[in-house]
Amino acid sequence: MNKLLIRGATILTMEGPDAIIDTGEILIEDGWITHVGLPGSASGSFDMDEVIEADGQVAMPGFINCHTHAAMTLLRGYADDLPLMKWLSEKIWPFEGRMTGEDIYWGTMLACLEMIKSGTTCFGDMYDHMHDVARAVENTGMRAMLSRGMIGVLPTGEKALADAEELAKNWNGKADGRITVMLGPHAPYTCPPEYLDKVMNLAAKFKLGINIHVAETLAEVEEIKKQYGKTPVQHLDSLGLFKFPVLAAHCVHLDEQDMEILAQKAMGIAYNPQSNMKLASGIAPVARLLELGATVGIGTDGTASNNNLDMLEELRTGSYLQKVSTMNPEVIPAYRALQMATIDGALCMGLGDRVGLIKEGMRADIILIDTTEPHMCPRHNLVANIAYAANASDVRTVIIDGKVVMLDRVVLTIDEERVMYEVRERAERLAGK
Amino acid sequence: MNKLLIRGATILTMEGPDAIIDTGEILIEDGWITHVGLPGSASGSFDMDEVIEADGQVAMPGFINCHTHAAMTLLRGYADDLPLMKWLSEKIWPFEGRMTGEDIYWGTMLACLEMIKSGTTCFGDMYDHMHDVARAVENTGMRAMLSRGMIGVLPTGEKALADAEELAKNWNGKADGRITVMLGPHAPYTCPPEYLDKVMNLAAKFKLGINIHVAETLAEVEEIKKQYGKTPVQHLDSLGLFKFPVLAAHCVHLDEQDMEILAQKAMGIAYNPQSNMKLASGIAPVARLLELGATVGIGTDGTASNNNLDMLEELRTGSYLQKVSTMNPEVIPAYRALQMATIDGALCMGLGDRVGLIKEGMRADIILIDTTEPHMCPRHNLVANIAYAANASDVRTVIIDGKVVMLDRVVLTIDEERVMYEVRERAERLAGK
Repeated sequence: MNKLLIRGATILTMEGPDAIIDTGEILIEDGWITHVGLPGSASGSFDMDEVIEADGQVAMPGFINCHTHAAMTLLRGYADDLPLMKWLSEKIWPFEGRMTGEDIYWGTMLACLEMIKSGTTCFGDMYDHMHDVARAVENTGMRAMLSRGMIGVLPTGEKALADAEELAKNWNGKADGRITVMLGPHAPYTCPPEYLDKVMNLAAKFKLGINIHVAETLAEVEEIKKQYGKTPVQHLDSLGLFKFPVLAAHCVHLDEQDMEILAQKAMGIAYNPQSNMKLASGIAPVARLLELGATVGIGTDGTASNNNLDMLEELRTGSYLQKVSTMNPEVIPAYRALQMATIDGALCMGLGDRVGLIKEGMRADIILIDTTEPHMCPRHNLVANIAYAANASDVRTVIIDGKVVMLDRVVLTIDEERVMYEVRERAERLAGK
Repeated sequence: MNKLLIRGATILTMEGPDAIIDTGEILIEDGWITHVGLPGSASGSFDMDEVIEADGQVAMPGFINCHTHAAMTLLRGYADDLPLMKWLSEKIWPFEGRMTGEDIYWGTMLACLEMIKSGTTCFGDMYDHMHDVARAVENTGMRAMLSRGMIGVLPTGEKALADAEELAKNWNGKADGRITVMLGPHAPYTCPPEYLDKVMNLAAKFKLGINIHVAETLAEVEEIKKQYGKTPVQHLDSLGLFKFPVLAAHCVHLDEQDMEILAQKAMGIAYNPQSNMKLASGIAPVARLLELGATVGIGTDGTASNNNLDMLEELRTGSYLQKVSTMNPEVIPAYRALQMATIDGALCMGLGDRVGLIKEGMRADIILIDTTEPHMCPRHNLVANIAYAANASDVRTVIIDGKVVMLDRVVLTIDEERVMYEVRERAERLAGK
């Protein structure tokens, strides 16, 4: 049995606003959190395989990025500040059309590297060549929910379904259980009802959840209304999609009935504030969704529309954006924002019984955040300092599934130089330079 | 004569989107930028007092934070997620009422430390005990525009005017010219017309600009309209305030006429996106102001409403917020956001002939940003990488007025531990713990 002890840290368990241990210790055995308590309370602390001294640091659950397209790191900065359709048709799609599985492997490796260095331990992905994405997840030690993006209106629609089935068979529960699989029909406007039927059959057959973009833009809502006489959410509901565990990404343009459906029937909603702002898609009514009892996690979306995978930046902007859009400074307070970026993100992907809390019985996805930098001083409120003042480089150490993947900012599972070299070369080729 | 050479960096001069030197060198003599050019082009490079090798880094003008209350670092995290009046009257004002000059000195020291570590070289401040703020600016090597906050409706209104006059006499142009002074009447709703008359007399006598909060909240606009029958901007215009160089902070709630007045008559506008979002004040119509030709800089506001002084975070959120609020992804593109955070900020404070560009004849306020971290890879677009993906810790080296104040993340002018110790102790005392 492998035993790892973290001691000296302030523990933000995320089990509740008061569930903070000022100085404590966390025992991890074979990847399971087996004890969380005061100093010296872990039994057998003499026979540890590894001890991390974490004085002056905060231990909290790793961030969970509910919605991204990891390999799009290859496109970071390739096209910005453009209208959506021009951005997609002239820049993003042609570039993506040139990407190979190997490109996607290296793009995902870079994303995993960036995520680890900014404290993200688990991400939800939707893309192509998912076998290569899975390889990157396996190699880097990350945790991920993977879904093959499926576009029913394309000639490749059937192949995408077959790929998704392959992905589920080959990778669901693999990499020591760090990989789970969902089905990824892209969106209601790219997947007609008969295609979604096939998706639902597959979901039933393999007991899989469904990861789908919903109501991201006004144009989508108008198109779906025109075609089906219903909003995207009500259209999907009438097709029976919500009988399955659904993670709905974006959900920017909703009416009250949409929100009630999502609150009652969706497994989770992925809120992507920076992407929605940068693409000028709109502001998701997250404060209202939370009021109705919805489970909302936070996603960065891909780095073509963000342009980084920094969850601290994302949860902060997400909170501030809700305050200003509702004209109410009390919505999504600091602790709530951290919950959305941890346990609620886990719940959104069906992983709430496994990660998102520092609690006995959970797998150990834990980050250590340095609190000694000037921007975290003074310490009137630790939670506010993390949610509203910390930055990505304050994350010093990252543990995923009980394994130390970054120790004092040195990533142990990835050859950083090699990954960046590969991505630079491939990005140049793909851009046609 | 002191000669400093920076070589090997990519130089983002901010003189225009194409004014980027791929690998170049910058010669600084006695604090003046005397040469910007290709490698080996600086004459006499053999007799340098100091050479900074900056391969793999980007040299750009330091960030200019147009609006803050630096000493409010003491209040970071002290009160968050509250309605404005409760926040002010129950938390902020009582805390501030207990602050001494020495507290303000140390709070400002911490702010300067944080600003230097995040690449800010110049800030615009409005607060009390400005002599102590000036001491901190002098000691840390920062550049600052300082203004004594003046509230005409308080019994201390007259003293504030006297303090402001003292500040101008003692500190304008001091600290080797790094300190300039403006007058700081707090806002139209706290400074009645007869008080603003006194301010304008002082401004005329000492040839000073005026730094004032304008139209930050809807409540203010309604109150001013009720009292004077005009919007805050039109009220100030009718009083003749814009005959002086005015830096107007916030400007959230404006009508078209207000915007025209500001575009034509104000020296500058300080846009504080994160503070306006967090306090739920509203979204300043910056895209429209820019269209009308206004000069708009970026401010963080104080850390009680932010909660950090990170200008990269601020300029990014500022750009994204304008895109989503105008439903136009093309407004404030990456380069424009960087301009607002550098040269336009300088112009807002009457310093546009001195700093904000890397250009011969300017004072050397320069930062070096590391571009080798995963979140800056690949490099399709350097400007987008900085504006949309970089974080504060990527700033490695900071030069202010030709002096190296941070070298490879070691701040040379400040005893970090001492400053944080003082602030922690004082913050606890002030919070009544």
